[in-house]
Amino acid sequence: MIQCHVFVAISLDGYIAREDGQIDWLEQYNALLPKGEDCGYASFYESMDCVVLGRKSFEKVLSFSQWPYSGKPVIVMSRSAKEQMLAQPQGVTFSSKTPAELLTRLEDDGFKNVYVDGGELIQSFLQLNLIQSITMTRIPILLGQGKSVFGKLDSDKKLLLKTSRSWSFGFVQDRYDLP
Amino acid sequence: MIQCHVFVAISLDGYIAREDGQIDWLEQYNALLPKGEDCGYASFYESMDCVVLGRKSFEKVLSFSQWPYSGKPVIVMSRSAKEQMLAQPQGVTFSSKTPAELLTRLEDDGFKNVYVDGGELIQSFLQLNLIQSITMTRIPILLGQGKSVFGKLDSDKKLLLKTSRSWSFGFVQDRYDLP
Repeated sequence: MIQCHVFVAISLDGYIAREDGQIDWLEQYNALLPKGEDCGYASFYESMDCVVLGRKSFEKVLSFSQWPYSGKPVIVMSRSAKEQMLAQPQGVTFSSKTPAELLTRLEDDGFKNVYVDGGELIQSFLQLNLIQSITMTRIPILLGQGKSVFGKLDSDKKLLLKTSRSWSFGFVQDRYDLP
Repeated sequence: MIQCHVFVAISLDGYIAREDGQIDWLEQYNALLPKGEDCGYASFYESMDCVVLGRKSFEKVLSFSQWPYSGKPVIVMSRSAKEQMLAQPQGVTFSSKTPAELLTRLEDDGFKNVYVDGGELIQSFLQLNLIQSITMTRIPILLGQGKSVFGKLDSDKKLLLKTSRSWSFGFVQDRYDLP
């Protein structure tokens, strides 16, 4: 069975970005981490077969100085095909399928572990019960407002805590599975 | 110096109650805790000198089968005086002062550690930089919507992680100090 995984850094009040999408607050904390410390990100990334991104997050990520999804196929979910006309980083393809259809195709193609990234995409996959694990790293800051990682749901969702760890620099990372 | 402390249980998406104020989801989890396990609440409560509550939370708490603030003076912050006409649990008084004025009075009275409880009151004390510690116990559930523990802020607030612990039944408790 193909499985979808989320790995996010969030503020204590639950935001993954400011209202305008900026993550300056997170970059400030990351810049102060001990050399080589990535809070398990490289290991998580290595265990994934591909990345599924929302269109907005894709456009945001294109503005970064470095393409963050090296060495993995990246599928951008977009209902329009205009992005396909632009020059894209290597390994990027587009899909206008629904999340469930896309996962069926990816499973047929032999993919097992999908890294689902981007605020709105995470919310829609969660609403569709398509996420199997969430790793949340809590950064010790309150932003007051911003983009939430979690959105509305049709009903409560109970999760299973698998691991919890904290660091002296104040991050707490919890991994939850969704039954 | 008088200090204000917060001790809250919150859902993974940051809510302390449903939109209508219900905490049935939390009571369900609490009912399944090992006998005698209170995740540090009794010890926290014991170390407090008094409780400051918002009016709405006070009215909510009055509907509980048991008065939860036994043995401590409770000050209910209310701009109207009508509550003073009703029969109240022992130890309850009302104040129409501002938070800062109330804390000055409590400090003059010799109080050192104040337990600030109730969603809206926590938010306003936080906005006024009057909170010195927050203990958050994260319950492994997503509610999708509800009453947030944190509100808007004038600027970012950086916190200091003091302790983090987790339990096999899935709760994670972090204590942060506000510098």
